[in-house]
Amino acid sequence: MPRYALLVEYDGQPFAGWQRQADRPSVQGAIEAALARLEPREHTIAAAGRTDAGVHARGQVAQCDMNKAWEPFRLSEALNHHLKPHPVAIRACARVSDDWHARFSAVERRYLFRLLMRRAPATLEAGQVWRVNHALDVDRMRAAAAHLVGLHDFSTFRSTLCQAKSPVKTLDEIRIEAVEMPSGPEVHFHLRARSFLHNQVRSIVGTLERVGAGSWEPEAVRDALAARDRAACGPVCPPDGLYLIGVGYPEDPFA
Amino acid sequence: MPRYALLVEYDGQPFAGWQRQADRPSVQGAIEAALARLEPREHTIAAAGRTDAGVHARGQVAQCDMNKAWEPFRLSEALNHHLKPHPVAIRACARVSDDWHARFSAVERRYLFRLLMRRAPATLEAGQVWRVNHALDVDRMRAAAAHLVGLHDFSTFRSTLCQAKSPVKTLDEIRIEAVEMPSGPEVHFHLRARSFLHNQVRSIVGTLERVGAGSWEPEAVRDALAARDRAACGPVCPPDGLYLIGVGYPEDPFA
Repeated sequence: MPRYALLVEYDGQPFAGWQRQADRPSVQGAIEAALARLEPREHTIAAAGRTDAGVHARGQVAQCDMNKAWEPFRLSEALNHHLKPHPVAIRACARVSDDWHARFSAVERRYLFRLLMRRAPATLEAGQVWRVNHALDVDRMRAAAAHLVGLHDFSTFRSTLCQAKSPVKTLDEIRIEAVEMPSGPEVHFHLRARSFLHNQVRSIVGTLERVGAGSWEPEAVRDALAARDRAACGPVCPPDGLYLIGVGYPEDPFA
Repeated sequence: MPRYALLVEYDGQPFAGWQRQADRPSVQGAIEAALARLEPREHTIAAAGRTDAGVHARGQVAQCDMNKAWEPFRLSEALNHHLKPHPVAIRACARVSDDWHARFSAVERRYLFRLLMRRAPATLEAGQVWRVNHALDVDRMRAAAAHLVGLHDFSTFRSTLCQAKSPVKTLDEIRIEAVEMPSGPEVHFHLRARSFLHNQVRSIVGTLERVGAGSWEPEAVRDALAARDRAACGPVCPPDGLYLIGVGYPEDPFA
């Protein structure tokens, strides 16, 4: 069966997450239902990142196997037609080889976390940023983040539900920018790694926020990491501001 | 009664527009209901721009008269509390003099129109951009827009429902930028004038889009303007991408 890579964008708000669930809407379920409109049968797709409830994607990558050989552009157009009215869109589609896998061939995941600093509730960005009432010190957060970059045992920053075999991961980058957005001053956290543990980004951002607010010292993050103990983590931040921005492969399937 | 200026942001999607209506949700109605929670009585507020259904605001300015003298920050906090869960937020509040008027004292309105050029439906920006399937030529649109800047009879670009006394207005600026956004390539139209006619921005953007797509020549916009005839207008574009960005006063009440 010919295999296709799909570049997927979605608003995570109406979904219980990427992964198909029996009784709740999921992104996987929405795409599989659209596939079933094109080729009526059971479809099971895989994705590079199994995002949680409320987490968004700009550049999720999924794969599907079709009975017939579709022209990739036509497949993306047909899927977008049947995905309506879900806030899920196929931004690109490419034929890939049978041994290519959206999840297992991936060598890099990139996440963005948007944090909005203002008193007024978010309106146009509701559910798409994490709003905090107070200003944050970006330099303090950068100093703290520096302790997390590299090869570490991330047990502290890992959900107790995490199914990964090992808590040891290499975090390639945490870049923190202050950005003036139409809604006000935001902090953007850019994280990049081969793979992430469950809740790792939200555990890190939630802890860094405490540093930026002044209630944790930057060095306390180093100590929390060294503790290798979930109890040493700061508060896990909400999913609202989290976006899977892109997935890297040895060769870009959409190039 | 002490008067306050309110800087208001909203997502226009759930509303029938700014203006209060008997049986449909409106931004004005939502703010007046919040005011009634603070001082129980009928409230009637005014705003600089009476935005249509589905039109958003980053910097709408409204005014309210209160019985008691509120500390402005406390008034904005209390209003934001009672505005939940509507996507309406008070970004700033200031005491103003009794002869200041949100609408009649305003000397400038600034609008932004966001147009997204891509095949895939909008997801995270659904309802907040106008998506078109095709690429647009920005230089052609700029050439066409140049004919509209200045003092003109804008009868062609005015809703038949418009209640303004005169169709003669000065359009101070139409600035057109190509912007690479996370969702793809967008065109941003920035329009600035002392005041606008009903549907003037959407009539202009809808017509310029036809020029950018190649189906109108730039000079046809000059002829359409000269016709002073509503029938000469291009298609009126949807409200989705339209934002009231800011309102100018002789002195900034929020400075």
